[in-house]
Amino acid sequence: MSQPSIADVRKSLIAPAGKLFDLSKRETSGESLFPDSKDAEAALEKDAKAIDQLQDRLYAHGKRALLVVLQGMDGSGKSGTIKRVFAQTTPLGMQVTAFKAPTSNELARDFLWRIHAAVPPAGYVGIFDRSHYEDVLIARVRKLVPEDVIEQRYDQINAFEKLLTEAGTVVLKCMLNISYDEQGERLKERLSEDHKHWKFNPGDLDDRRDWGAYMDAYETAIQRCSTKHAPWYIIPSDSRTKRSAMIARLVRGALEEMSEGWPEAKFKAGDYTVE
Amino acid sequence: MSQPSIADVRKSLIAPAGKLFDLSKRETSGESLFPDSKDAEAALEKDAKAIDQLQDRLYAHGKRALLVVLQGMDGSGKSGTIKRVFAQTTPLGMQVTAFKAPTSNELARDFLWRIHAAVPPAGYVGIFDRSHYEDVLIARVRKLVPEDVIEQRYDQINAFEKLLTEAGTVVLKCMLNISYDEQGERLKERLSEDHKHWKFNPGDLDDRRDWGAYMDAYETAIQRCSTKHAPWYIIPSDSRTKRSAMIARLVRGALEEMSEGWPEAKFKAGDYTVE
Repeated sequence: MSQPSIADVRKSLIAPAGKLFDLSKRETSGESLFPDSKDAEAALEKDAKAIDQLQDRLYAHGKRALLVVLQGMDGSGKSGTIKRVFAQTTPLGMQVTAFKAPTSNELARDFLWRIHAAVPPAGYVGIFDRSHYEDVLIARVRKLVPEDVIEQRYDQINAFEKLLTEAGTVVLKCMLNISYDEQGERLKERLSEDHKHWKFNPGDLDDRRDWGAYMDAYETAIQRCSTKHAPWYIIPSDSRTKRSAMIARLVRGALEEMSEGWPEAKFKAGDYTVE
Repeated sequence: MSQPSIADVRKSLIAPAGKLFDLSKRETSGESLFPDSKDAEAALEKDAKAIDQLQDRLYAHGKRALLVVLQGMDGSGKSGTIKRVFAQTTPLGMQVTAFKAPTSNELARDFLWRIHAAVPPAGYVGIFDRSHYEDVLIARVRKLVPEDVIEQRYDQINAFEKLLTEAGTVVLKCMLNISYDEQGERLKERLSEDHKHWKFNPGDLDDRRDWGAYMDAYETAIQRCSTKHAPWYIIPSDSRTKRSAMIARLVRGALEEMSEGWPEAKFKAGDYTVE
């Protein structure tokens, strides 16, 4: 059985801070880390169980939080990732937020207002299905705001994520990197399989036509916002199982670092008895 | 009649960015700008009316917001300021938030979480009665968090206020500077006058005993966080009327700059008739 260590997964998938970043050079298959799907499946199972126990520990400590940011094109598997990686985690310990197009109430404030409101409290795992990065991705591709505003946003994002990490939240950012061809297959499934029809949105095809512009926007966002305090990981996502397995390794690694062991008891043996 | 221009008030009260700041050198009487209380009263009346009209205009434009931050020792007149300066403004156009000791729910996130949630939407005037500065004032004096955390917070505050200003919110920060003796008089009033008893809090006396430590904490906060994008103004506050008059001048000035004139009509004469 060949299962990569957490350190290997990190090293292989990170977008190093302060370096030029070329998305087209990144693998989408996931074969380097998981040549065999069966190994990925087995690792994922094991990690999902460990993540549940580690979240319990995070809660017991009550000091820190984990924020998992998931970004990717339509069909790249954001919701599938949440389902698989946190399959064993109690919903009590999680806080999932799916960000849609902003409401008029949200547009009346800075773009980070609704994001900040949704950050997880200490003890919890927060998961963002899309995030503040939409404001430098779709906002850039569709020219929703002027270029100089986009330009400011990269720095604003970095300052915001720095605040979160300094306050004890680990920010784990995953870009689900699928190929153009694989996305095509997945959108076709949405059109042809009854139980997937509801996922289809004609707008997805507009975004697909702008694939190149989106890849450029991702590249810039990752280059500008992969920082030491909150790096981006680029997840090969053409295989659903391998993708989830890699993200599970990263989530597990983050949780392991945050809370080693259980908190010390606030009482000594014999202090209390239960009759 | 001697009424200082808005430019004079700004120039006289600002704490210039990037300069050493000495609070003890600042006047508390307000006599330099308003030698005569009657002039202050007249200016305040006029400005309060103008502020109401200017807020209407801000709302009509619907693009920008004003955030007035009020900080000061107990009895320095934060609530009195709100009452006087916005005496004529419709409550519909304002959003006032008084920050108390953080709840456990608030403490489970970074200190700016509850602050960000309360920022005014475009078109509104937001008023903070106390603010995120408590987290570098009382938090420092009472050692509620380690020193290195306080140290990080100055930069975090600057980044946060930069985000707000870049998104179109003017951040107007006023430190209500009263003398130790004047505070003593006001606390005595709270003990001796029936209708002020409810304002008295024994904790105020603890803070008064730590006057020097508080002044040091204010000095550092002002020096670190009086920035070009969000400067601090030090308001002489021993006279209630003069204090409110000076703040009203600053508020009026901010609103005047934000929305010159009314927005252009989206229709031409004759486009519509009302029968």
